[in-house]
Amino acid sequence: MRYRLDIAYDGTFFYGFQRQKDKVSIQGTIEDALSQIFKEQIEIKGAGRTDSKVHAKYQVVHFDTQISIPLGSLKKVLNKKIAPHIYIKNIEIVDDTFHARLSAKKKEYRYFISLNEFDPFLANYEYFYPYKLNIDRMKEACKYFIGTNDFTSLSKTVEDNMIRTIETCELTYINNIITIRVVGDGFLHNMVRIIVALLLRVGNGRLEPIDIKTIIEAKSRHKAPYIAPSEGLYLWYIWY
Amino acid sequence: MRYRLDIAYDGTFFYGFQRQKDKVSIQGTIEDALSQIFKEQIEIKGAGRTDSKVHAKYQVVHFDTQISIPLGSLKKVLNKKIAPHIYIKNIEIVDDTFHARLSAKKKEYRYFISLNEFDPFLANYEYFYPYKLNIDRMKEACKYFIGTNDFTSLSKTVEDNMIRTIETCELTYINNIITIRVVGDGFLHNMVRIIVALLLRVGNGRLEPIDIKTIIEAKSRHKAPYIAPSEGLYLWYIWY
Repeated sequence: MRYRLDIAYDGTFFYGFQRQKDKVSIQGTIEDALSQIFKEQIEIKGAGRTDSKVHAKYQVVHFDTQISIPLGSLKKVLNKKIAPHIYIKNIEIVDDTFHARLSAKKKEYRYFISLNEFDPFLANYEYFYPYKLNIDRMKEACKYFIGTNDFTSLSKTVEDNMIRTIETCELTYINNIITIRVVGDGFLHNMVRIIVALLLRVGNGRLEPIDIKTIIEAKSRHKAPYIAPSEGLYLWYIWY
Repeated sequence: MRYRLDIAYDGTFFYGFQRQKDKVSIQGTIEDALSQIFKEQIEIKGAGRTDSKVHAKYQVVHFDTQISIPLGSLKKVLNKKIAPHIYIKNIEIVDDTFHARLSAKKKEYRYFISLNEFDPFLANYEYFYPYKLNIDRMKEACKYFIGTNDFTSLSKTVEDNMIRTIETCELTYINNIITIRVVGDGFLHNMVRIIVALLLRVGNGRLEPIDIKTIIEAKSRHKAPYIAPSEGLYLWYIWY
């Protein structure tokens, strides 16, 4: 039997999604709770990893077990065990062909930058940028991230396949909050935070919008050794 | 010279306002930063203590020193040292007659109860109450807290003077969020969280609104051994 969990978490309190020795992780917290409930070792697979302090408004994981537990009570017991920084929104039994990562068609990340006065209540949830930004230049730069490309320049690590398709890179600016929405079929390590860091450099005048094109074409991380802080980043949605 | 600081903090990350050995406190964090900046031992006085995990949208502290530092740069340097969970909103030089606690005329606390589905992003900022509540009964009960009374029944500790004047106790209910506003000339230990716990018991039917009157008149903590969780509570404003 394969269980699918749709979850959300406040990344502030975790060293990222992936289980790590002696560090509190999303995966570790959920696996430990499930293993207690099912009284056997449970291993979960997530749609994607999120780094330390990165949030998920929506993340999907699956796991297999022979044991059947009514979904309503499983949700209740599991949520009680993992509270309060992770929340299971929905549980269902899925077909064996469903895979949280491999079945995902595309993902959306959002990044929030605040130009408001600093607010300690939002410190973990937005990136407070203390300088001026030219929003129009940033909007113009967004379009250079869209398309199917080798995105080696925008990845912390090198993998077998560095080609990804970014279908949306869109910036809105309302009430002094910049929201950057990026939708793609997959993302390389730190890719969204590198995109945001480059957009900030276009916004503050250190780069021209057209430089984004040159940076991507260079296929080299050395062209863009910048990264925006983790607290502004949310895994926002996953399409199956 | 007396400096007045108007501050805000996310209480989640502190064991309360008051300095404690080996525990992170608001007072300790600010005093350590100020002592470094002024290169002498600085002791601050706050308008009131807040308990572990209780927030302050507005809190006032003062301290004395012979040393003069331009206020703009002091604000910048101090905020950098204490970031990100405490924020100094304003600094000014005040008359020696000003005292953060003794000059306070009245204070407002707010408490937030959510009847929405649990949200891990708000877990530290609202109390998620999972059962039904009768809002009208709670509104009716509010009026019994108003007035000048010996509030021994609503205090964790016994002090010399247990008489306080509560001028406002008001409940609003919008978008499944209950906001309780309490304004008074002073508050006893845990008083607002005890008021909220009693209102919840009126809302869920375990108490009648009129029972509040009886409980206060009993002048005994044993009549109301309840307390609402800290995460929903905010020191909201102080009038001088």
